[in-house]
Amino acid sequence: MKLRLAIVGATGAVGSELIKIIEERQVPYTELRLLASKRSAGTKLSVNGKEYTVEEATEESFRDCDAALFAGGPASKAFGRAAAEMGCIVIDNSSTFRYEPDVPLIVPEVNADALEGHHNLIANPNCSTILLVTALWPIHKYSKIKRAIVSTYQACSGAGKEAMDELRDQSMEVLKGEPVHPEHFPYQIAFNVIPQIDVWVDGDYTKEEMKLVWETHKIMGDDSIGVTPVCAVRIPVMRSHCEAVYIETEKPVSVEKCRELFSAEDYIVLQDDPEHLLYPMPITSTDTDKTYVGRIRKDTVNENGLNMWISFDQLRKGAATNAVQILEELIKRGSFGA
Amino acid sequence: MKLRLAIVGATGAVGSELIKIIEERQVPYTELRLLASKRSAGTKLSVNGKEYTVEEATEESFRDCDAALFAGGPASKAFGRAAAEMGCIVIDNSSTFRYEPDVPLIVPEVNADALEGHHNLIANPNCSTILLVTALWPIHKYSKIKRAIVSTYQACSGAGKEAMDELRDQSMEVLKGEPVHPEHFPYQIAFNVIPQIDVWVDGDYTKEEMKLVWETHKIMGDDSIGVTPVCAVRIPVMRSHCEAVYIETEKPVSVEKCRELFSAEDYIVLQDDPEHLLYPMPITSTDTDKTYVGRIRKDTVNENGLNMWISFDQLRKGAATNAVQILEELIKRGSFGA
Repeated sequence: MKLRLAIVGATGAVGSELIKIIEERQVPYTELRLLASKRSAGTKLSVNGKEYTVEEATEESFRDCDAALFAGGPASKAFGRAAAEMGCIVIDNSSTFRYEPDVPLIVPEVNADALEGHHNLIANPNCSTILLVTALWPIHKYSKIKRAIVSTYQACSGAGKEAMDELRDQSMEVLKGEPVHPEHFPYQIAFNVIPQIDVWVDGDYTKEEMKLVWETHKIMGDDSIGVTPVCAVRIPVMRSHCEAVYIETEKPVSVEKCRELFSAEDYIVLQDDPEHLLYPMPITSTDTDKTYVGRIRKDTVNENGLNMWISFDQLRKGAATNAVQILEELIKRGSFGA
Repeated sequence: MKLRLAIVGATGAVGSELIKIIEERQVPYTELRLLASKRSAGTKLSVNGKEYTVEEATEESFRDCDAALFAGGPASKAFGRAAAEMGCIVIDNSSTFRYEPDVPLIVPEVNADALEGHHNLIANPNCSTILLVTALWPIHKYSKIKRAIVSTYQACSGAGKEAMDELRDQSMEVLKGEPVHPEHFPYQIAFNVIPQIDVWVDGDYTKEEMKLVWETHKIMGDDSIGVTPVCAVRIPVMRSHCEAVYIETEKPVSVEKCRELFSAEDYIVLQDDPEHLLYPMPITSTDTDKTYVGRIRKDTVNENGLNMWISFDQLRKGAATNAVQILEELIKRGSFGA
């Protein structure tokens, strides 16, 4: 097997996680290049005990690469298509290519088979969608989900490393009674919540909200699921997202059955023991690769309705881990030779 | 008019707001007593420029009182019924009496008329319900609300003064990398969210969640509204609650009509201008008496569905202001003489 691998955006929040996860999971690359913008070029980073100098990404960077993990940002648009045309398999974490019909949008536990016949360009879904579909999928396989009504509680890591620094610095400023100067968020995020993530699209929804609709349909391969993004909300948490989810299924699913379906999936951690105060939270899901599910209850109104509360690490399963899992899936399918 | 007024729990988070609001709104009391637990008795507090010594609340405290505002806590159960039987009109902020059939549960903008024929015991609703019903009511009057699916983003003030201190102190500890020791919340609240508020009731719902169902029905006088509390969640915010709300109405309501209905109510501030990044947030609703409504959108699925985002100050309209407004309503109705 020959796997000359590039990591694009290696110095950012997702890039750092990509490196950690490649080490942890012992991804069998034969060569590795770390790429970033001109500003970050020259940075030295250690991977598997070997020191690498981060290079500026250019179109030429991808000529001798077999695969590239793009962390997100402007590089995707600048080099994604060109790299793919050169024969490099691009796994892209930005939203640039997600809705193009020739680009598979993959959560390996759900739709790994959609990788078949790819054209060297594979999209990693938006974090809040990965969280949602990993929780919906075990139920959907058992009884079709007709409706999903979702509100999000999204960590600052989704806006990058500087945004996480902003939460940290601003929290200290607020505690000291000093004035705050928002830069990466439109308003103060410390001790506040902001009901806007990403830009506005049609109907006054944010793009972040509509991603939940578009991407859930594409990944689950079912446009008939009625997804309502009530509100996508940024909260003062560092790196784990949560979602409050109401679903309606075709046939009623009991809480017990639902717990059984989740327990059967090794990518899910069922934390649903009210008596012992066990439920998903950012402090427990942070720095893990699992989707945490709990607070499962029969709806108060609809006998086919269920309520639940889910959480996961936005930088890991919400971005870097999912991308590396796609790469592993390609390795397994022989994309880089035996 | 004779209004000998007592404030019970005067030294707590809600009690402090009650005093501020009585001053601001120039409540025409003729005498004032500040009561609290034994622990806080002896504290000196200034009201309208006059110094008061906080007394320990006992049953006898209410013998010469015409009205008492109970901030919440164990005093309600201990003295509420007895005070009412002595002829003192009790306006109680705890959940002790809310579901008793002889006790009106009042949000003055919605159901002031339910005060008629009260038996000296009047309940102030739970904060998250006040937020919800003040936003639902203008729509419900125009087109019956059939369904309300709600997730909450609740500030620490709902758990009292010490809980607010805990958020402040713990945030500093986390920023300094020091260990945290949760006392007022079951887990770390700084840079975390906790999907549990209050105790568990039937079906693994929390009492906080079921209050949204029970109290909305009682205040709006309509048990047929299908209220789903997807999750009631504590977040690291000081004193303003938010809610993400999906509703279905009997006939379709346009976004424009919905904005018009909200604009017509002086207790609501419409903040719904995406282009100018105007939407409700804790930093703007804090220290005000209004309900803030925004992010109003036609649902992605149901033509009778609407999504919105609402916020208000939990200590003011969520507790103290609403209680004082009930008192003002009683004054207006001549309960304390002309």
